[in-house]
Amino acid sequence: MTERRYDPVSGEWRMFATRRQDRTFLPPEDLCPLCPTRPGHPPTEVPLPAFDVFVFENRFPALLRQPPAPDVESTDLYPVAPSAGANEVVIYSDDHHLALADMDEARIARIVAVWADRYAELGRRPEVAYVFVFENRGVAVGVTLHHPHGQIYAYPEIPPRAQRELDMAGAHFAATGRCVYCDVVAREEADGVRVVAENASFVAFVPFAARFPYEVHVAARRHAPSLLELTDAERLALAGLIRQVVGGYDRLFGFPLPYVMSMHQAPTDGGDHRHLSHFHIEFTPLHRTADKLKYLAGSELGAGAFVNDTAPETTAGRLRAAGGA
Amino acid sequence: MTERRYDPVSGEWRMFATRRQDRTFLPPEDLCPLCPTRPGHPPTEVPLPAFDVFVFENRFPALLRQPPAPDVESTDLYPVAPSAGANEVVIYSDDHHLALADMDEARIARIVAVWADRYAELGRRPEVAYVFVFENRGVAVGVTLHHPHGQIYAYPEIPPRAQRELDMAGAHFAATGRCVYCDVVAREEADGVRVVAENASFVAFVPFAARFPYEVHVAARRHAPSLLELTDAERLALAGLIRQVVGGYDRLFGFPLPYVMSMHQAPTDGGDHRHLSHFHIEFTPLHRTADKLKYLAGSELGAGAFVNDTAPETTAGRLRAAGGA
Repeated sequence: MTERRYDPVSGEWRMFATRRQDRTFLPPEDLCPLCPTRPGHPPTEVPLPAFDVFVFENRFPALLRQPPAPDVESTDLYPVAPSAGANEVVIYSDDHHLALADMDEARIARIVAVWADRYAELGRRPEVAYVFVFENRGVAVGVTLHHPHGQIYAYPEIPPRAQRELDMAGAHFAATGRCVYCDVVAREEADGVRVVAENASFVAFVPFAARFPYEVHVAARRHAPSLLELTDAERLALAGLIRQVVGGYDRLFGFPLPYVMSMHQAPTDGGDHRHLSHFHIEFTPLHRTADKLKYLAGSELGAGAFVNDTAPETTAGRLRAAGGA
Repeated sequence: MTERRYDPVSGEWRMFATRRQDRTFLPPEDLCPLCPTRPGHPPTEVPLPAFDVFVFENRFPALLRQPPAPDVESTDLYPVAPSAGANEVVIYSDDHHLALADMDEARIARIVAVWADRYAELGRRPEVAYVFVFENRGVAVGVTLHHPHGQIYAYPEIPPRAQRELDMAGAHFAATGRCVYCDVVAREEADGVRVVAENASFVAFVPFAARFPYEVHVAARRHAPSLLELTDAERLALAGLIRQVVGGYDRLFGFPLPYVMSMHQAPTDGGDHRHLSHFHIEFTPLHRTADKLKYLAGSELGAGAFVNDTAPETTAGRLRAAGGA
């Protein structure tokens, strides 16, 4: 069963893909499906002896180009729709152990170029309303393959959190004539105390009302709706700041810090959102100390209200000192 | 630092409470702060030799009756507010090992009576807009004390998820003249295939568009906005169905299944929501198989879009067979 179902209580579409239950789960290194295919061994996902960055369609997709017909009938109360869209995997390099945190800037910039390319390519498809680039890093956030990689979900609707942010940005724009994220960036630069690292084009900061203790946003200083509006110099600056942030995480904690990375870009549904969408990346590590996680439990999961046990100004200081800057 | 901060990007208030970082973390059984105080031993949270159900204010609160002044100044872009409200702990019994799943109906009914009492009492406070009763069960969802207990957060605003559901229910009511959850209950009873257990007053089902594989909602058959509208007979029926659901979880998995339990009731902000709020409890276990969890990662955390690897009709059948019914 691969279909999307609408929940009338929350107003959210949910994806169902029962074949995912059988997906590859933490295979040993010599059976890694994301490594290059070795001569004399069974083929992996990559039919090449070596590669730089490699993108392929997830073999256990929740969204796909030719979705099957849904199993159940659509009704007014419970709408059902095909799982149109795409799930792609972006392998960051052919080195099984080379994480984003350990790469040089030029190598990260090549991944940034691939993200931009996939955003453009998937966003052009008429059935795709929103291209979401992300990375789950570490077993603590549910990674099922260790080889460093990210993912791209091309959704047929603007997903709930992105829609909420557009609604809020629209209200702010109506009231002030400005992009809310532009105001946030200006305020963070003025306050300084939550800034983790910065360069000519980007600034990394712990948000004023962060959900997670070590949450960091990497935001374009100028109003760019997506990666496509960034110049080559800006993309290189972005790569540099990504490197500083994830490198800083690992230096501060002394181990590869698990995180979810979420890229926020303009929807590709043809709507007029470009004045509201401000390109930024959100890093949300779950750790609140080296040996304790921040769990999403009652208040967060049931009520949607986050409790943070740390002051953003304090964690920003720690990340800055760890060489985020 | 104990304060609330508003995130202008998402439109959400977040709670900050740095003292919580030092809270008691999985103490050994003989140092359990939720057990009765024993003669000759240091006092626990309960200055009694035995008790039935015991409620006290969380010693590491994110919301409290007399909140301190915020550390930082409130501005138009970044509003800040005191952490007004309450965090209470509800100890389910004086037996360190007696979980909800192992209690008889009468005992659970006494806990239901306490939930109703606290909802009324906290809801009467002028600073409390929403009373949220929940339970985090199991280390997998972040429990820091093993002794069976639940919690109550009394928020000064309607929290994001509850507000979203009110908005959706309002739109449904405007279009149809009916409560959306009443329609959902009627549909689940008619379809039957997702029903896990039921009795005269309540029905337990896996939602049509469930976020989690073994998510179960326990809903009042008639439109009751909160526990306060339930008769004694209905509360007993609720206790019976809670027992069946959590007992069914443990029988199906063969171990005490971790879950988050979230109670949905009418806000207490004085607004006119009673026609929109339909009392129900949501159980969200994180397990997708006995040894694998459903993680909230990229799509869920970053985009707010849930992927479920199971068909609700299938998991409902398993829970029904495990004696949920």
